[in-house]
Amino acid sequence: MQHKKRILTGDRPTGQLHLGHYVGTLKNRVRLQDDYDCFFIIADLQMLTDHLEEYASIEGNVFEVMCDYLGVGLRPENTFFVQSQVPELAELTMYFSFLVTLARLQRNPTVKDEAKTYGVTSMSYGFLGYPVSQAADILAFKADLIPIGQDQLPHVEQTREIVRSFNRIFDKEVFVLPQPLVGEVPILVGTDGDNKMSKSLDNFIAFAHSPQETERRILNMVTDHKRAYRKDPGHPDECFTFRYWSIFSPSDTPLVCRECESATRGCKECKTQLAIKLNDYLVEIRERRQQYASQPDLVWDILATGTRRARVVAAETLAEVREAMKISFPQLLMKGGK
Amino acid sequence: MQHKKRILTGDRPTGQLHLGHYVGTLKNRVRLQDDYDCFFIIADLQMLTDHLEEYASIEGNVFEVMCDYLGVGLRPENTFFVQSQVPELAELTMYFSFLVTLARLQRNPTVKDEAKTYGVTSMSYGFLGYPVSQAADILAFKADLIPIGQDQLPHVEQTREIVRSFNRIFDKEVFVLPQPLVGEVPILVGTDGDNKMSKSLDNFIAFAHSPQETERRILNMVTDHKRAYRKDPGHPDECFTFRYWSIFSPSDTPLVCRECESATRGCKECKTQLAIKLNDYLVEIRERRQQYASQPDLVWDILATGTRRARVVAAETLAEVREAMKISFPQLLMKGGK
Repeated sequence: MQHKKRILTGDRPTGQLHLGHYVGTLKNRVRLQDDYDCFFIIADLQMLTDHLEEYASIEGNVFEVMCDYLGVGLRPENTFFVQSQVPELAELTMYFSFLVTLARLQRNPTVKDEAKTYGVTSMSYGFLGYPVSQAADILAFKADLIPIGQDQLPHVEQTREIVRSFNRIFDKEVFVLPQPLVGEVPILVGTDGDNKMSKSLDNFIAFAHSPQETERRILNMVTDHKRAYRKDPGHPDECFTFRYWSIFSPSDTPLVCRECESATRGCKECKTQLAIKLNDYLVEIRERRQQYASQPDLVWDILATGTRRARVVAAETLAEVREAMKISFPQLLMKGGK
Repeated sequence: MQHKKRILTGDRPTGQLHLGHYVGTLKNRVRLQDDYDCFFIIADLQMLTDHLEEYASIEGNVFEVMCDYLGVGLRPENTFFVQSQVPELAELTMYFSFLVTLARLQRNPTVKDEAKTYGVTSMSYGFLGYPVSQAADILAFKADLIPIGQDQLPHVEQTREIVRSFNRIFDKEVFVLPQPLVGEVPILVGTDGDNKMSKSLDNFIAFAHSPQETERRILNMVTDHKRAYRKDPGHPDECFTFRYWSIFSPSDTPLVCRECESATRGCKECKTQLAIKLNDYLVEIRERRQQYASQPDLVWDILATGTRRARVVAAETLAEVREAMKISFPQLLMKGGK
């Protein structure tokens, strides 16, 4: 039997996941889990690189993310783990920090962009180095494929450079080059109609939101700016709400389009219907999520099992790494066993 | 019984230690070991930040450094340990990397100077961050006192800043401020008469050198430039060799001075005598060093015992640290015990 290829991907536990994550990556992960050995990292330490003041919310957020993962249909048999609970990752990050120049990190376009977006005026040392830490996350598990959006490509390239440097300097093929799996990671614009859906902009619809809350948020969405009165014909192509129809209920779009253009459908009723469709779309996810959320012991158990497996795999890699770097010190290990 | 205060200090395993280390710090450590709980770190990872290509020599160098330590009279009961074998230090380094800005590290004058001295044209990320790693080395053991030379003061200051940030942000007094113990760390000029004694400049006298090799190196030393002929009176104050007399055999200096100024002592015989004195000075150190070097199992055992103790202490600190940072995840630990 041929081994399944391994995937590593994950999220920072900044809060509940939402439709933007679903459309962007989660849906894709649900599809990938059949064919790959999937490692899902909840990157709490990476979150701390630029959300340090939110540290107290990590534990709660990790639980929410796990409920979201299981809710969208990721099976419990996947390897889910918490970054900080696999200390081998910090060790590997340190080793890799010798292989990457400061100048190289400062050229990373995504790090620069993010610093701008998040208003990081005084970048922490850890923030600049998060691509090194990400390389450790990938390579500790010798992941073959990294599903990412275009903006994450520089990080996979950095990881590949580290692989080449490590294998060359320590003269051993410890790591293989991971491949980016660049999907079209569609960016879902949030309910404000302007920005990428995100928790911090409060333009999001979370899996944890109730149907009522979802409806409220949909009803606040902008529609066709050109349509001044209910009796005026609408322009679906220029309507932000219509975009959600095409994403979440594409089979309905011909009808919606016709009724809008003929002014037989008003914007308010259109959004009410959209909310119903969206709630239908989410009903299974929400039910499954709720089942898990009501059994915290089970959720933590799934995470504990995954974290345990992650540690075992990472420890094996680290043993190889130390061996290659000639810092195994077998003389100390033997004595240590006394 | 009052607890002894704890000291942390150490060396990078770049090779055998020499007289420069002895005069500079080792002699002082031998004195301090009576009154303090001493942790001596052999900082192999810090060495890799700018000597990566020498990685294969680490294990051998660690052994040499241990023989040197025990040779100069540091007692086996002190806590000697290898940095890379206490992975908690990498973990703590990572946590601290969130607390220090890039700009702050780039202002560290010692890092700048060292980069210049060692010709680091393309500084690695790990090199820039070694003061963060050093803070982890100090704080993992909650060391009270850090014996250093003036040039290391910025690193202790950085460590103290990290203590203040950590305790403030995580609202818990996990760390206490370590104090620098700024001794006059005399800098021994090497046998070339120009530069600080160092292995890389080959102007050094190692504890591991034989008496013959030591004599050879002393005989190559420069003396009084103004004294053209044996019959000319010398100028001890301007003679580099005379400085070694005053350091290693101060009681002889009046006689040496008189004989030099009256030209009854030639430079060659002066150096031959110095070599004899120096070899006398080193005889006990060399004998003890040789005894240990011939019992590698004993030396590794001392290091293993120290490393084990270091891990226990560091693990206790890390448990406190994770608790304060709210990344303990007791839910996972309990499940992990299954």
